[in-house]
Amino acid sequence: MNKSGHLWGIGVGPGEPGLLTLKALEILKDATVIMAPRASSRDESAALQIVKEWVDEARLRIYGFPMTREPDSLAGCWREVADEVAALVEKGEKVVFLTLGDALTYSTFNYILQQLENKIPPERVTTIPGVTSFAAAAAAQNFPIVCGEELMAVIPLPDGPLARVRGLVRESDTVVFMKIGDRLEELLEFVNEEFPDREAVFASRVGTPGQYLCRDLTQLPEGVKGYLSVMIVRKAGKKS
Amino acid sequence: MNKSGHLWGIGVGPGEPGLLTLKALEILKDATVIMAPRASSRDESAALQIVKEWVDEARLRIYGFPMTREPDSLAGCWREVADEVAALVEKGEKVVFLTLGDALTYSTFNYILQQLENKIPPERVTTIPGVTSFAAAAAAQNFPIVCGEELMAVIPLPDGPLARVRGLVRESDTVVFMKIGDRLEELLEFVNEEFPDREAVFASRVGTPGQYLCRDLTQLPEGVKGYLSVMIVRKAGKKS
Repeated sequence: MNKSGHLWGIGVGPGEPGLLTLKALEILKDATVIMAPRASSRDESAALQIVKEWVDEARLRIYGFPMTREPDSLAGCWREVADEVAALVEKGEKVVFLTLGDALTYSTFNYILQQLENKIPPERVTTIPGVTSFAAAAAAQNFPIVCGEELMAVIPLPDGPLARVRGLVRESDTVVFMKIGDRLEELLEFVNEEFPDREAVFASRVGTPGQYLCRDLTQLPEGVKGYLSVMIVRKAGKKS
Repeated sequence: MNKSGHLWGIGVGPGEPGLLTLKALEILKDATVIMAPRASSRDESAALQIVKEWVDEARLRIYGFPMTREPDSLAGCWREVADEVAALVEKGEKVVFLTLGDALTYSTFNYILQQLENKIPPERVTTIPGVTSFAAAAAAQNFPIVCGEELMAVIPLPDGPLARVRGLVRESDTVVFMKIGDRLEELLEFVNEEFPDREAVFASRVGTPGQYLCRDLTQLPEGVKGYLSVMIVRKAGKKS
């Protein structure tokens, strides 16, 4: 194995190029290969958008983003991408794998890490953490997420009914809802039931030109969608 | 009120200067006043350490960090700091308030925001999000925090018995424990009970010269302390 080969999984933050870390930018500039998914994947091409001013086409390697949710085919797709990454590292390339938000929080890099086990030595893999979409959504509206001893839950909307996460919601002071997709109305109903007294923010495509922010959930205009969105709900009176 | 006055709450990340964001650095360089707590506060002087290469003494304003946990005195202390900030902004200063990690996740800036209400107009306050200690702790060990539909809880150790957070722990797939302080042994016992099968990482002072990382909780040497530490525990078999 060529000595210089290395993989960096980089969390590029949720949308605004300024939220890239100094370290991520340094590594990105020095990389020989930058892996990004085909633009057909809505969420993931956003990661490339964020860093595009520093990425020339010659270093860019586009991979096919899995279009399935079936666990076995999904694992197969990620195995192919991981095999490509491993081969590049073996050849001595300095490979960057871009992910939106933080690199290990609901990110595609988690799948790559799992598939790379035993394929390249762990000392050749480095993860660079990033700013999450919920930290940016809160910041854009000066909204305290959690204070003091408050308890926080992060909930990607489950496949089934939202009632599945009711237990977690009730045990928490602040809840961050992610992966809202086309279920914003259903989520609003659930939040109205569970948090009759609350402070909340909603943010969609935070830090991008298409950003939408809203602090009053009752004022969310019809037609607002949950893609690349996050909702943070805090039980009222929780100002410790 | 002088037109140029503005306040930026900046999350500087958990310890490594390279985890500062591009935007945070730009604002920091342009600021006329940089607020940091007296070094007697262990956690908070760490924020100044991270950015010290960009901060000259002339711009630095040291404030007294509240040494009380009594809610009323605490609010009084933060009110004094907020009053100082408000007066600076009114005079036209570009004020940066430093916080460790993310700016709104268990941060002192939350208290400042609350105390500033009605003191300076909201459009004169900007929050810059940062990388959390748990994202950095996971990254330092290539440890996936949450995948797919997994549920996550963030728990600062409560004042009382840990049993108080048992409900939340049981509803979650991954739990991040913060503010461990001198209760690491008690936490380990609790984690052994609640997560007989698990993957876990512990990190102390991540990204600083005093960094300590550990992936096997049974191997934590005696004498390791929980200050500026984080433990992430993931239920085993949760690789979606």
